[in-house]
Amino acid sequence: MHQTFDAALEINLLHANQEGADHNRAHFDDWGITCFNVMSSPGAGKTALLERTLAALTHDLTIAVIEGDMTTELDADRLRQYGVPVIAINTGRSCHLDSKMVSGGIHRLAHEYNPAEFDLVFVENVGNLVCPAEFEVGEHAKVALLSITEGDDKPLKYPVMFQEADCLLLTKMDLAPHLDIDVEQIVANVRQINTHVPILPVSAKTGAGLEDWFHWVRAQVHLRQSQPSLSGVL
Amino acid sequence: MHQTFDAALEINLLHANQEGADHNRAHFDDWGITCFNVMSSPGAGKTALLERTLAALTHDLTIAVIEGDMTTELDADRLRQYGVPVIAINTGRSCHLDSKMVSGGIHRLAHEYNPAEFDLVFVENVGNLVCPAEFEVGEHAKVALLSITEGDDKPLKYPVMFQEADCLLLTKMDLAPHLDIDVEQIVANVRQINTHVPILPVSAKTGAGLEDWFHWVRAQVHLRQSQPSLSGVL
Repeated sequence: MHQTFDAALEINLLHANQEGADHNRAHFDDWGITCFNVMSSPGAGKTALLERTLAALTHDLTIAVIEGDMTTELDADRLRQYGVPVIAINTGRSCHLDSKMVSGGIHRLAHEYNPAEFDLVFVENVGNLVCPAEFEVGEHAKVALLSITEGDDKPLKYPVMFQEADCLLLTKMDLAPHLDIDVEQIVANVRQINTHVPILPVSAKTGAGLEDWFHWVRAQVHLRQSQPSLSGVL
Repeated sequence: MHQTFDAALEINLLHANQEGADHNRAHFDDWGITCFNVMSSPGAGKTALLERTLAALTHDLTIAVIEGDMTTELDADRLRQYGVPVIAINTGRSCHLDSKMVSGGIHRLAHEYNPAEFDLVFVENVGNLVCPAEFEVGEHAKVALLSITEGDDKPLKYPVMFQEADCLLLTKMDLAPHLDIDVEQIVANVRQINTHVPILPVSAKTGAGLEDWFHWVRAQVHLRQSQPSLSGVL
């Protein structure tokens, strides 16, 4: 549940959210944690990507997940099978996580575990290509997924998500032979909105392209751990 | 741009939107127009469905479209090729159409055309499986699309859309052989949320199932035109 407001109220709301996000990020920085905010339309494959990622990276990295869903713990339960802490947040009628909700998740994590032991926290947002892009939750980088089944026009029609993304995964690449889709056109449309974001084509089903994603994740974590002066700046 | 609010403010916002929706519906009723609000995740195939629908039904029915998008007129331009009036509404940062935006569209339609000549208006909402379901725009029925590429758990995870739907289309059925998806499970999950909504599996690509959809559309229009006492009640 949400509504559009006048400009002054919008600014106040975003300002309050931003303060909360900065507070969350300060916690992550104190604990040496890198945090990614993972966002996409419903069904683009965020949970499937995280399943593959946990299977591959929990040998080298200590990972936790903050899992946002309007209702149910279906996704949280899928990820718990990988032996990592998963803090589930039900947003009710809200179509996105905000920094206050994630703050609750962080404090639960810190209460139940020693947070300084974690290298990496994934925040899996509610499936929505619009609103999550506007609400920072304290992440160091925004990871957006676009399933190639959604069509090549989405970067132009939902530009905020593609402007804000620090890493973009094109998911379900295994379906490309069965779709009337031009992946080069997707890339060209992204480039109209964001000239520099890394674009990684992947398939969680076949595993294609996932090594590039894992490499990006590891590089971000190592960059932050080796250069603490970069705290707060990606 | 939107935010979650306290309960009293939510009620006021939804009440104001509902008043506007009732006003819009009174216009449609005066003009003998049936209005459908078409909603789904981004890329589930709303515009592709409407392309097929305009191609098939403009011989018997006089149709207009009110087309909501955050930005661009890409979808509006696709539908204009079918020779029908398409009123484009750019919602800016808003993730859904509300009744006030659609009121603007209705008044443009009435200014440029004789509205009493139309049988049917499709409102194509912003691609979002969460928020559009909560904001009536004056429609007589809500049409929801779920692409089978999105997974079988979506009715449970995004229940409001599936509770509110008066007709549910399962789209991209042509991809079923290439997906690890159980369509029976989708139907079972919908039935947990909504015991009676018609569920129509379709493919805009192959045309499979579209006759059932066209039949449903025609039946709704004829029902309303033959029984004016049903105005406002579906």
